[in-house]
Amino acid sequence: MAGEGAPERCDLLIEAGWVVPVEPHGVVLADHAVAVRDGGIVALLPRAEARARFAAGEVVSRPDGVLIPGLVNAHTHNPMTLLRGVADDLPLQEWLQGHIWPIEAAVIAPDFVADGIELAIAEMLRGGTTCCNENYFFPDVQAATYKRHGFRARVGLPVIDFPTAWAKGDDEYFDKAGEVHDQWRDDPLVATAFAPHAPYTVSDANFERIRMLADQLDVPVHLHLHETAHEVEEAQRTAGQRPIARMDRLGLVNDRLVAVHMTQLTNGEIALCAQRGATVVHCPESNLKLASGFSPVAELARVGVVLAIGTDGCASNNDLDMFGETRTAALLAKAVARDAAAFDAASALRAATLGGARAVGFEDRIGSIEPGKQADLVVVDMAQLETQPLHHVVSQLVYATGRHQVTDAWIAGRAKLRERRLVDMDEAAIMARARQWRQRIAGIEQTR
Amino acid sequence: MAGEGAPERCDLLIEAGWVVPVEPHGVVLADHAVAVRDGGIVALLPRAEARARFAAGEVVSRPDGVLIPGLVNAHTHNPMTLLRGVADDLPLQEWLQGHIWPIEAAVIAPDFVADGIELAIAEMLRGGTTCCNENYFFPDVQAATYKRHGFRARVGLPVIDFPTAWAKGDDEYFDKAGEVHDQWRDDPLVATAFAPHAPYTVSDANFERIRMLADQLDVPVHLHLHETAHEVEEAQRTAGQRPIARMDRLGLVNDRLVAVHMTQLTNGEIALCAQRGATVVHCPESNLKLASGFSPVAELARVGVVLAIGTDGCASNNDLDMFGETRTAALLAKAVARDAAAFDAASALRAATLGGARAVGFEDRIGSIEPGKQADLVVVDMAQLETQPLHHVVSQLVYATGRHQVTDAWIAGRAKLRERRLVDMDEAAIMARARQWRQRIAGIEQTR
Repeated sequence: MAGEGAPERCDLLIEAGWVVPVEPHGVVLADHAVAVRDGGIVALLPRAEARARFAAGEVVSRPDGVLIPGLVNAHTHNPMTLLRGVADDLPLQEWLQGHIWPIEAAVIAPDFVADGIELAIAEMLRGGTTCCNENYFFPDVQAATYKRHGFRARVGLPVIDFPTAWAKGDDEYFDKAGEVHDQWRDDPLVATAFAPHAPYTVSDANFERIRMLADQLDVPVHLHLHETAHEVEEAQRTAGQRPIARMDRLGLVNDRLVAVHMTQLTNGEIALCAQRGATVVHCPESNLKLASGFSPVAELARVGVVLAIGTDGCASNNDLDMFGETRTAALLAKAVARDAAAFDAASALRAATLGGARAVGFEDRIGSIEPGKQADLVVVDMAQLETQPLHHVVSQLVYATGRHQVTDAWIAGRAKLRERRLVDMDEAAIMARARQWRQRIAGIEQTR
Repeated sequence: MAGEGAPERCDLLIEAGWVVPVEPHGVVLADHAVAVRDGGIVALLPRAEARARFAAGEVVSRPDGVLIPGLVNAHTHNPMTLLRGVADDLPLQEWLQGHIWPIEAAVIAPDFVADGIELAIAEMLRGGTTCCNENYFFPDVQAATYKRHGFRARVGLPVIDFPTAWAKGDDEYFDKAGEVHDQWRDDPLVATAFAPHAPYTVSDANFERIRMLADQLDVPVHLHLHETAHEVEEAQRTAGQRPIARMDRLGLVNDRLVAVHMTQLTNGEIALCAQRGATVVHCPESNLKLASGFSPVAELARVGVVLAIGTDGCASNNDLDMFGETRTAALLAKAVARDAAAFDAASALRAATLGGARAVGFEDRIGSIEPGKQADLVVVDMAQLETQPLHHVVSQLVYATGRHQVTDAWIAGRAKLRERRLVDMDEAAIMARARQWRQRIAGIEQTR
């Protein structure tokens, strides 16, 4: 019985007005607490019991707050945060070839990657995101930057059929991928994935090598797939096959596949994803902004495909706001499915947390508030005008909450945001570097 | 020359890092100031010149801020803010008939209208909205509440073919409409419009009466029109005519018409709107959430229809966030048009300001920062991580800015929000009343 015997020690006890554990699905627990020890969740229990059972090193009490699992941004190119809004409202090819690629060619280097990711980490933490699925060049720098800030990430090991600042040819891409993977294989926060860019930029031979190595290293394969109708049409025209069919022929449509975008899908392709256990990452705002198309999210969910949510990079969004992205996902899915009951608030929140955890291959350690999982946790303040009156907590989180209502965030039990202040990041220095990059990029644009 | 002679008196000088006047279109003025006298804008000029030319009663300096016209929420049911999230993720008919209407039947009365509008005004001001196009029952209470808080509004005079708490029959609707109109006809802040509910709830006879009276009283006609495919199909089935064709037959498709939603439009209907000067209010988030359909915004803009943006009521959105709504409008229009260049950031911001001003019939007094217009102004802070680096101001406002970055708001030169604090509203009291309504509505839901 609670109250008998000596209290159990824990490092941190977080009491909240409501806890939404995500698993079990759709549940809201009023006046509950979470006990954290050694970075992990040891108990989720009524607040009154928690005080009796635990002797906590620290108690954080948020009676107007909702405690949720940290959000997982399941597809992002965080160095591109420095390119936020540099070119908008342009046709896709002009945007890429006339702006994004030339600027990237001039800036991609370790400092760009590190500074962009630092800005992104600060933005993510302030918005309740505690883990991301990164996809860019210089995964060594990415991994070191995430680790330095205690931020949980899966970093992609890029493979693309042309030379970049990161590698000059196939062998160098794979050699460097192996090195980065080896360096981070046992890290508790940062891990790697293969990140072949897209079907139209990676050869069959390289995809086969990736399939073999991904099995061997036990990592996900993070791939842009069926992003636009143009991609699918071109593949059919040049190779006589839709990209998913080609990926299937190469053995890549399986439970390691993290398929991003997926706006063009036949019923057969949807069924194939369900059958093979592939995860789909939905990036609704990027798909809208680039006019890529509409992913059939409700149908994917209906047949049991695990869905995650990503913001994509800041050049096509233009933020890393997972509250906003989740809301857009929930809203858009209904209109696409012509069903106002489709992809409800609890399902959208699940995609943004546990679905994301599945996408990054961390579903055993994050994505829900369950004993045994890591304490990646976020508090959202409901005592603001914009979330009053509070009729239903999960509905409010998805349809009315702004990311600025996030007050606290922990990763593996370590406080990263406290009453809206970043605990261990120098915000002024990050802002100053962002301003320097603005100057430098403006210079590049002027001299082109 | 500036500096010669005695300085001109003004009440308020607002200096900003950037001013986006909206008219001229797409312009960004760095380091400018706006001088305000007797509630109106007297000058927009470089900051250095402003200090020399004016002796200001007050100077507000926001070097990291962007000064924009106050946003206009061109379609809302603000008393329903008290129903935020009360029922979500339901098929339309179940949502309306099983939840919204029964709750409304139990609560609609002057206190519900006044309390809901007070909460809404506070939320709107904190989010940079300074004017709204209201559509609900008890327009007398609405008008008095907006006036009491110095908030600019066009309140709808409801007409609907069945009895409600506001009126029992046709004559009472029209009598009361006339009374409310007479009371507010000369007010500088609050005016009226006719607000027939929808083609499927208002008879030909009542529409004809509205057309005649709207001309006579010189007010807009604010109408839900072509919101869903179901509405259009039913009209064709029962009356053999699409609703817009019927409205045209009744003489209502003209420059007084403020047509809300418009998700189902033929090319002929789009051309008709352009030709007749009707304004279209786009409510993208409500259209998505209720699975109503997609408005062809880019096509409407292309042929010259004036577009405005509205949140709709909080039961189908679930907020009054015009920054979020404008962003959704800009993103969604591109995917619907299959053109990433469609409805660019400057066009979306114009719809949210000058377009809204046109919708409420106040285009001569608000919607842009021009001498002679009223000083309905808003400052947005760009010195936050989420809007850095700042490559392009208008792009940032539309694609990356959150409403919590609004720091200051004025209506007719009167400060309503100052460094994020509501100047003359009792936030704690508003929150307390919202909590009381939550209890009362929960009681209604339990006893049904």
